Amino acid sequence: ADGRRRLVSSSPDEPCKKMTLYFHDILYDGGNNTANATSAAATNPTALSNSTYLGMLVVFNDPVTERNVLPVGKEVPAARAQGFYFYDKKESFNAWFAFSLVFNSTEHKGTINLMGADLMGEKTRDISVVGGTGDFFMARGIATLRTDALEGLYYFRLQMDIKLYECYV
Amino acid sequence: ADGRRRLVSSSPDEPCKKMTLYFHDILYDGGNNTANATSAAATNPTALSNSTYLGMLVVFNDPVTERNVLPVGKEVPAARAQGFYFYDKKESFNAWFAFSLVFNSTEHKGTINLMGADLMGEKTRDISVVGGTGDFFMARGIATLRTDALEGLYYFRLQMDIKLYECYV
Amino acid sequence: ADGRRRLVSSSPDEPCKKMTLYFHDILYDGGNNTANATSAAATNPTALSNSTYLGMLVVFNDPVTERNVLPVGKEVPAARAQGFYFYDKKESFNAWFAFSLVFNSTEHKGTINLMGADLMGEKTRDISVVGGTGDFFMARGIATLRTDALEGLYYFRLQMDIKLYECYV
Repeated sequence: ADGRRRLVSSSPDEPCKKMTLYFHDILYDGGNNTANATSAAATNPTALSNSTYLGMLVVFNDPVTERNVLPVGKEVPAARAQGFYFYDKKESFNAWFAFSLVFNSTEHKGTINLMGADLMGEKTRDISVVGGTGDFFMARGIATLRTDALEGLYYFRLQMDIKLYECYV
Repeated sequence: ADGRRRLVSSSPDEPCKKMTLYFHDILYDGGNNTANATSAAATNPTALSNSTYLGMLVVFNDPVTERNVLPVGKEVPAARAQGFYFYDKKESFNAWFAFSLVFNSTEHKGTINLMGADLMGEKTRDISVVGGTGDFFMARGIATLRTDALEGLYYFRLQMDIKLYECYV
Repeated sequence: ADGRRRLVSSSPDEPCKKMTLYFHDILYDGGNNTANATSAAATNPTALSNSTYLGMLVVFNDPVTERNVLPVGKEVPAARAQGFYFYDKKESFNAWFAFSLVFNSTEHKGTINLMGADLMGEKTRDISVVGGTGDFFMARGIATLRTDALEGLYYFRLQMDIKLYECYV
């Protein structure tokens, strides 16, 4: 039997679980980074605003780490982020994300499902944790995103502060 | 400290928060409405059913207003709807939506995240509020959609009655 | 008045509702199966990994049944699954889903909204039920997926064990 019991935070100040993770997106550049790339554009930007990539939808299976560096050698990342984002604004870069954090380590097994607007003009912005499975059964909460690195067109790194307010423990 | 406390409705008749908003979609027509368009097709309809746009995926950053008219002049909309929809049916028009309502006004700051089937053949249809941030921290509920206007291929307006049943107040 | 009251499971062992359903995906093959196809690729696989369909996004409006066979003749399916999936991995087949189960029968009216990673390499994998409407008002839970059939490129069938842990009854 599963002995876990439901725990709901009584205040936004008191999450039942907190984690900080780093999301690394290495976008396929069309040929030179095939071995390293972990995401690829499934659609092209539209003519409505080519310069801000409006309409470009990127599918990813990105490494997620506990420290803000890419895994070295055969190091296994803490999780994979599987999902997609697209750019949606004419005036500036702005994105929308939906994805799963997939954990399969000795520490954690299970998934966390997230979605929301990545308001890239803001220093930090919040998206929703809308569900979870396995160790994160029925999780809900918030992930606060911060751009931790942006290197040209083909690499960015997001710091994700994940705070759960509904847990089974 | 954040003094808000969790409030859960005991009955479907008693939402903890209600709002009516209007969602305006102005689709890019390929060249003539670049200045006004707030959405664009990232994919073309498929040959499975070109006439019902099956497979056309539209990315949007649409104005959302309190009254059922577009913002006039420099008037700031109540929110932006950032997300996407696509058409998915052979026999008739039918869509699926996922998006964030992004509020950044004196009245509200924060986001509401929604997803669900837009059963366009029904006079009203419900989608899910699956999460929220800021003023809408951890929100859940229902949005009832009604087509309020449909003008040719490039403009539609949805009335959204948003009813939250989980709030922090 | 709506006399339903909120019910939350106290343990992962005790869902407030359980259902087993079968999801049938018949992918459009480009011409020969137009009458039967219920899904279509809106994007092509990317060059990052053509062989695992990475980047192919499929829009669907698929029949969902109580037994593991397609509806026969004029038999009406138990529900429709409306949404999309895409493939996201270089090394093997792996997908990500977001969709609505749309019920419109004498037994059930309403929708269940789901999202999550379909880890195709696992015998079973869990995705999240993130919301519901109508008979499934404010539902949350888990759907356990199992590949029940895989016939060439154009048909697969998933068994979905849906377990809700938040219900209004």
